[in-house]
Order: sequence, then C-alpha cells, then structure tokens
Amino acid sequence: MPEALRIIPLGGLGEVGKNMTVYELGGEAIVVDCGLAFPRDEHLGVDLILPEFTYLQQRERPVRAVVLTHAHEDHVGALPYLLREVRVEEVWATRLTLGLVKSKLDEHGLLRASELREIDPERGAIDLGPFRAEFVRVAHSVPDSVAVLLETEAGRVLHTGDWKLDHTPVDGLRTDVGRLAELGNRGVDLLLGDSTNAERPGVTGSERLVGEAFRQIIPQRSGRILVASFASNVHRMQQAIDVAVEVGRKVCVVGRSMRKNLNIARNLGYIDMPEDSLIRPVELEEHAPGEVLILCTGSQGEPLSALVRIAYHDHPAVHVERGDTVIISAKPVPGNELRVHDAINQLAKSGAEVLHQENAPVHVSGHGYAEELRTMISLVRPKAMMPVHGEFRMLAAHARLAEEGGVPPDAIVLAENGAVVELTPAGARVVDDVESGVTFVDGLGVGDVRDVALRDRRHLSEDGVLIIVATLGGTNGRASAGPPELIARGFAESDTLLAEMRDEADRVLRDLVEDDVVEIKLLQEHLHDGLGQLIYDRTGRRPMILPVVVEV
Amino acid sequence: MPEALRIIPLGGLGEVGKNMTVYELGGEAIVVDCGLAFPRDEHLGVDLILPEFTYLQQRERPVRAVVLTHAHEDHVGALPYLLREVRVEEVWATRLTLGLVKSKLDEHGLLRASELREIDPERGAIDLGPFRAEFVRVAHSVPDSVAVLLETEAGRVLHTGDWKLDHTPVDGLRTDVGRLAELGNRGVDLLLGDSTNAERPGVTGSERLVGEAFRQIIPQRSGRILVASFASNVHRMQQAIDVAVEVGRKVCVVGRSMRKNLNIARNLGYIDMPEDSLIRPVELEEHAPGEVLILCTGSQGEPLSALVRIAYHDHPAVHVERGDTVIISAKPVPGNELRVHDAINQLAKSGAEVLHQENAPVHVSGHGYAEELRTMISLVRPKAMMPVHGEFRMLAAHARLAEEGGVPPDAIVLAENGAVVELTPAGARVVDDVESGVTFVDGLGVGDVRDVALRDRRHLSEDGVLIIVATLGGTNGRASAGPPELIARGFAESDTLLAEMRDEADRVLRDLVEDDVVEIKLLQEHLHDGLGQLIYDRTGRRPMILPVVVEV
Repeated sequence: MPEALRIIPLGGLGEVGKNMTVYELGGEAIVVDCGLAFPRDEHLGVDLILPEFTYLQQRERPVRAVVLTHAHEDHVGALPYLLREVRVEEVWATRLTLGLVKSKLDEHGLLRASELREIDPERGAIDLGPFRAEFVRVAHSVPDSVAVLLETEAGRVLHTGDWKLDHTPVDGLRTDVGRLAELGNRGVDLLLGDSTNAERPGVTGSERLVGEAFRQIIPQRSGRILVASFASNVHRMQQAIDVAVEVGRKVCVVGRSMRKNLNIARNLGYIDMPEDSLIRPVELEEHAPGEVLILCTGSQGEPLSALVRIAYHDHPAVHVERGDTVIISAKPVPGNELRVHDAINQLAKSGAEVLHQENAPVHVSGHGYAEELRTMISLVRPKAMMPVHGEFRMLAAHARLAEEGGVPPDAIVLAENGAVVELTPAGARVVDDVESGVTFVDGLGVGDVRDVALRDRRHLSEDGVLIIVATLGGTNGRASAGPPELIARGFAESDTLLAEMRDEADRVLRDLVEDDVVEIKLLQEHLHDGLGQLIYDRTGRRPMILPVVVEV
Repeated sequence: MPEALRIIPLGGLGEVGKNMTVYELGGEAIVVDCGLAFPRDEHLGVDLILPEFTYLQQRERPVRAVVLTHAHEDHVGALPYLLREVRVEEVWATRLTLGLVKSKLDEHGLLRASELREIDPERGAIDLGPFRAEFVRVAHSVPDSVAVLLETEAGRVLHTGDWKLDHTPVDGLRTDVGRLAELGNRGVDLLLGDSTNAERPGVTGSERLVGEAFRQIIPQRSGRILVASFASNVHRMQQAIDVAVEVGRKVCVVGRSMRKNLNIARNLGYIDMPEDSLIRPVELEEHAPGEVLILCTGSQGEPLSALVRIAYHDHPAVHVERGDTVIISAKPVPGNELRVHDAINQLAKSGAEVLHQENAPVHVSGHGYAEELRTMISLVRPKAMMPVHGEFRMLAAHARLAEEGGVPPDAIVLAENGAVVELTPAGARVVDDVESGVTFVDGLGVGDVRDVALRDRRHLSEDGVLIIVATLGGTNGRASAGPPELIARGFAESDTLLAEMRDEADRVLRDLVEDDVVEIKLLQEHLHDGLGQLIYDRTGRRPMILPVVVEV
C-alpha cells in the first residue's frame, strides 16, 4: 500500500484570508499559496496577520516548492515572511503573479531567498519531487490565475485556488472547463475548492458586465471621473482605460500600489493602452475635469489611501467637486463597511455623485456562486471533497453542494486550520493536527504581539487606565505612606471623583501601614481592589488600574 | 408677514440614528422623535449615543410636546434622557408606540415625567399651541407608524418618519396614499422625508414576502427552528407565529426585550396567537426539536443576546444541533457585519443550517427605495424638500430624486444637525445654527465621557501604555535619582527592550540631574521624548508614555 499524502491547511479554513496549504509525501513538502489576512477591529493596532509557520520551521528539510495560484494578498502576502523563516527551494507562479511577487520580495530584500520559476499553464506538468503538478487556467479578479492538479502515488488532488466560471473574461482566458472535464475523466481523488461564495445562489456576473457599466456611465459625464478598485484588479483597470481612451479622456493613476501594479502589468503585456493616454498626477492641472479619468486605490476606505485622502481634501494632486463622478468598483470586505461609507459621505459632501455596488452595476465578485461550484463538482466528479478558502458557514454550504452533487457524505472533509488530512486509496480523513495559530505583524515586529498584549489593549480601550503612585517611607523604624498621586487616561474623571479616589487611596494605604502591612505586592492589591470598587460604584466602569508603590 | 417656522434637526442628518427634530413657532416648541444611536467601534467603550439637548435646555419655556412617529430606538430611545433634562408637557404617540415607550419610561422611573397621550390617526387633528398636527398611517417594520403633518401659520410641513410603500402589509394598514394625495392637493410647503434607502433603485419588497418565505421553509424542516429578528418587529413575529401554529409547533420567545415587546403587543391586540401555542423556555425540554419554533433576539450579533449565547453554547434553555434551522430575519446594521458572521459561523459549526438575507428571502427593508420616495414626492408635490434620516450620501441621493421629481433645486435644503431652517412663504432656507453635538452614555454616566477620553482610549488601544516611575531624592543639598521602575501594558515588550528602556530612562534622569535640572515637569518631558524615540526606533510603535517623577 502506498504512503498516504498528507494535506495540512495552515490558513484559510474558518476565515477569509491567509490561505496556505502544505502537501507532504515521501519526506518532501510543497506549499500551495502563502497569504496574509487583514486585522479586524478587535486586533487593536495590529497591521497584518500571518499564518503561523512553526510546523514548517520544525521540518528538517527545506520546503521543495511554494506554488502560488494567483497574485492576491490573501494568497501571496505572507511569502516574504515565510522566506525569512523557512528555507524554500523554489517559488512557482504564472508570469503576472511572479512579476507582482518579485516586486514585493525586492522591497523586502528577499529576491535571492528562493529560486523564482514561471508556470506556463499550457506547457504541461512539472516535477516537484514526489509531486507532479499541472496547472489549469481559471478566471478570477486578477489575470493569470490557475488551479493546481497534484498527481502523486497516493492519488490526484485538484486545488482550485480562487476562481469563477467567467465565459467572457476580459482577456479571453476562460476557466478551462475542457481541461477540468478531462481531469474528471482521468479521475480526481480529492477536490480542494474555493468556498467564498458557496452561500450565494445562482452565478456571479462576468467581469465584462463591469466594462459595460463603465461604457454606459462614463461617456455621459462631464466632470472628473474617479474609478477606485483593488490595486491588483488589472482587468478592471483595463476596462476603465478602454472607455477612457474611447471618449478621449487621459488616464491618471493615483496611489502607490496601483501605480506599481499598473507598471508591472504593462511591462509584462497584461495592460494594453496607448502611451500618450497616460498622464502623471502633476499633469492633472493642465487638463479640464472632463478630460481625465483617475484610477485610484482606496476602494476599501483604507485610512491613508488615495481615495480617502481625496475625500478628506488631503490629496496633493486630486480633488473632487460638484459635477464629478466617483465609481467605487469593489465590494467592502466585511469589517470595512463603515470606512467605505464614511468615504462615500465625504465625497458626496464635496458634490460628487458616488456610484458603488449598491446603486450601480460597477462590481462583480471574483468568486463563483453556488451554481458555479456545482458545475466544478460535476466536471471534476471528485471521490472526496474538502472545502477551503472561507468562514465555516461557507465551508458548510460548500459541503452541502458537494453532497447534493454526489460526493458521499463521509467523503466530505470539513477541516480546520492545522488539521492533518490523509489521502489514501481508502479516501480522505483527518488523522491528526499540528500547531497552526496566527502571527501578528505590528509596526516593525513580527510575532511579538501576543494575545495578552491584545487583551490589555482591549481593556485599555474600553474604560481607560488609572495609575496610582504611592510612596512608602520609613522613619524611626516605623513605615509611613506619602500622599498618593493619581493619573487617569481615557476614563471620564471628574475633579470630585478624582479627589474622592485620592482620599480612598490615601485611606487604604494608611490603614494598611498602621496595621504594619508594608509588603508592596499586598499594598498594590488593596489599592487595586479598593479603587476599582469605588470607580465601579460611581461610574459603572472598570478602567485598568495600575498601582505603583515606591519605597523611598 | 407671518412669523417664520423654525425647524432645527438635532440628530439624524448625516448619520443613521438619533433622529430628533425641533419645530418652533410663537415661542412654543414641539419635538418630533427623540432617538438614540448605537456606538461605532471608534466609540471605545461607549454604550449609547444621544443627541445633545443643550439647545432645549437653554429654552425658558417647557417643550409643548414630543411627538413620536414609531417605536424604534432611533426614534424614541433618547426620550427617557430628554425627560430627565428638559420639561416636556406632553408626549404623543400611537397606541403601540405609547405602550412600548411607557414600559421604557417605567424602567427609568419616569412614568410621571410628562403627560402621555395617544394619537389616533383616524381621529383628525390635534392642537399643540401654534401647531395643528394631523397623522397619516405609514407602513414600516413596526406597526402603528405615522407621518406627521404640521399645519402652521407659516406653512404646512409633512414629516414622514420612517416608511415604505407596502401595499400588502401584514396588519392590512397600508401607507395611506389617499391621505397623502389629499395633503398634496391641499398644498405641502415642506417635506421632511426618510432618506435611508434613497440610493437603492426600485422598490422594497412587501413585509408579506417574508411570511411567504417562512411558509416555504418552516413546514419542510424537522429539527428546531429559531427565528431571530429585531425585538420590535411585531409583524415579523406574527408571521413566524402564524406558520408555527399552522404546522403545529409551539412558540417559545427567548430574550428579555422580545418577551417584553411580545407581551405588550399581545396585551394591546397587535399580536394574535392562541394562548396554548406559547410555551416558556423551561418547557422546551418537554418538546421534541421538531415541535418548537423559537423566536429570539440577537439578529445583530449583540454580545449578550439570546442568539449569540445560543451560538456559543452559553444559553440555559436553548441549544442547537445538527438538523436545526436558524433564520436570521434582519440585515446587519453597518458595523455589525462581523459579529453577525461570527454568530452564523458558530451556529453552522453546531450543525445548524443558517438562513439569512444573503442566501434566502427572509428579510425586507422597512424603508422605501428610490421609486417609493419618488411616489411620495409625486403624491405630496412639496414646494420645498428637506431630506432627513440618513447619512449624507443618502440625503444627497434623496435630493436628486426630489429634483428629478420637480422640486426646484433652490428649494431643496441639504442641512446638517443643528441647522436652523426657516420656513416662510418665500420658501425654506438655512439661516443659522445651534449647538448640536452628541452625548455619550457610558456605564452609569451620561455625558461625562468626552472626545478627549475617547482619544486617549484610542491611543491606548493602538499601542498600549508605558509608565515610568522615577524617584528624585536629595542628600547633602545635591539631587539624586533612584532607579526608575517601568510598567508596560498592551505593547509587546521583550525583556531585552524593557532592560534597554530602563537603562535609557536611568541615563536620561542622571544626565539631567547632573546638569541640575530638577524641575519635575521637565524631567517628565525628557523621559517621555527619550523613551518614545527609543521605542519607535526599536518597534515602530508609539505607546502612550506616562512618566511619573516622585520627589521623596
């Protein structure tokens, strides 16, 4: 009986973001995708969230290869951090993905950390030790996306990456349903499929619909036009550029990441535009508002992004006014709704009309809806199924689709991050689990902020902090306490309450010292509890209380 | 020329929530609605947000009347706080609204703070000093909602409250389009209209559609059925109860506010159900899962609500398991999305199927969409228009609808909270503004938390806090500094960094003392800046730094 293939998701299960899956066989490991997640409000002050790499760090041999399915941050963003911690022999990705990743690695000074190799989906299989990998083109909201077929002794696994069933994609490169059907005929033992939109009935619209909306909207407008989208959404940019060129507007790109991505995409031939239609931000003032179209970042309302700076009249080159049109060609990622709404309100106050997914067809999802996922299951006819990429409710909905599509219920694996799934000729099942937490990137630190720091920040953020500084002296062998000093921050101290707290702290200290209690830890505990009770009685709040007793 | 009518919105403009509008004429004031808003994440630790009442507090004469359009918190929730601060002669509301408000005032011990009087929309006008008020039934997501027509010497104003154009409402009480047309024929000088859904094209679905969805879903299910909705959504409860009774399930209501509201609504005749179909939570265990339907609170993922406690296996009477169905019959208010998603994920993990507005037609909005707002404008044909109830983008969209509907652009008033709008025969325009901020309710305190406390909490929540306690002593006329003590909370201190910071603090102090700098304020400033720089260089973070120098 051949050795089992081990499949270990280190991220992306039970969450949207930080997708990363390890495949192990014969002592070799390859990793499909290495993404990051963005913090939620509860991650106070955290900048980025990475998968935990402990499991890979503990392996003795280097990782044979990281294979990237497409260039989105939730699939490639953690790669620089991985390459700092873990030896990886090769990184494989398609041309555009590789171009975008290279620029990222360059910024981190990691261009030579691993051998970068290009996937050509048309060229056939590549051998990665015991894994033979083939690639299938899929349509998604960034060009050059692929699904990965891993052919091993233990069975064939298809890992879809992010995909939709777009029959009229902007670049003409459809999800290759013919290849998928061929794989289905060959026999797929396990399907790992994108579950993001498994809950949504029907099918998602073609990316081309957004271009049609642009074509309806843009020619009718006389003022400035701004189009905000994800910086990686090359097709979206191309479609806006096409209409701009048709109506004779110059195109200006604002926002560092979008300028960078557009440059890379143009150099690699993924964006097609006449040289003279592009102007720089400083040239905007030479053109009338009706002569320009501005592509910008900020579709998620990110605080320092171009669109948000423009909305708050804080951008050096662009402003909006009455008669202008702003198209937000994206959907807010859950948690970003309020920021996006704030930006829309600010833009509306400047007099601009703001078109967004709720009032105009200016966005389509890059992830297939339920009927598309059913189609994938019908084409591939997997013997077993493991929903990936999504919160638990999405994985559960995908599992229901698989069951309805004929996959036996006991061949559907609903796993969590860190699960060890074994694939053998007998099927796929969870056999073990490994360490798989999160690593916070906060300022310059990677991994040094932990839950206890976040818990403290949360506590501080709820009710603020009160610091009590008391001095403990001794004369003639008899201890005595000086008058305590109180500092309150972030909780609503009134002068009377402050005075009352000072008296209480004084009383607590004197009582204890009179009873010859001079152990500092004990004094601090009593101060903490006494003042805590007083504050709660008076205000109903529980600030963090930090008593400091200094012996002098 | 008659005196101008002054219209002063104290809340609800540029925001969703805390709707409140003052009308003044001849020295008398009436207030339409008195709502509260729920805090956003940036309002760290705040429980509720009220309109600022300063303007009304500064008036010499009491408020003639508060008129409430319907029983939602964003229209009535601040009433107890207003009645504590401002003398109000009468509070007018329809029967159900009054019933729900009475119970709220009772909890606050304010039942006698003002005379409570019932509006009967069919009974004709009431006189409130210089205001003659008539009421028009409108359909909304709580029964007994009305629009208010104020007839004054200065002109006629129609204030819609929240409404939709439901032609098949559950209680048969439609938005009274006949009366609206009649008012239009009589002549309306100013329309203050609900703008919540002005951006959404088309029309909203009838409340009855949700009942039809319940009728599709519920009979097919064999396990427990939970229906979560707003506690005030009496029609939603009635429709779920109707289907439950039809299929022979007992109904159990879980969650304090929903039990209270259901009781009031039943006593007043707004809910119709057989006595024996209602069971108490403790009786649930006597029934098989397939024999019960549980109505519960928590549709917004509120932390201590019934649904969330159930989702986290923390409810004394209800649990969910494989085969159960949870219907979340509400839309997350912007900002609550992640909480709701978390609850759905938890419920899905327990094996329940969760139906919500994204995957099933189990919710409709209570606010009219663009075509409904156009219909209102066509029926009423107002001479002037002032969009209310909504963020700026919604007000702006409503203004566009009014313009398209024939209201002259210079007769459309896009005002902000605190604006003083004067209505004269010459039209409506902003002439002044008054104080109109927000008041935070935090724990037991009303209004004592201010922006500076919130700023501090925000700072603390981003990067935590570092406290430096140093002692300054003197011997032989020469100052000397003791070794400083450092306390860090909420920022990722490593032992080496802590040691380095302690050394730096020590160095700063000694250097200064050697130079005979002993002024405490100066010492603290140097400690603050020196350590701040060190921490930023090492970690890229900026915790709040609180240096305390104690003279001993």
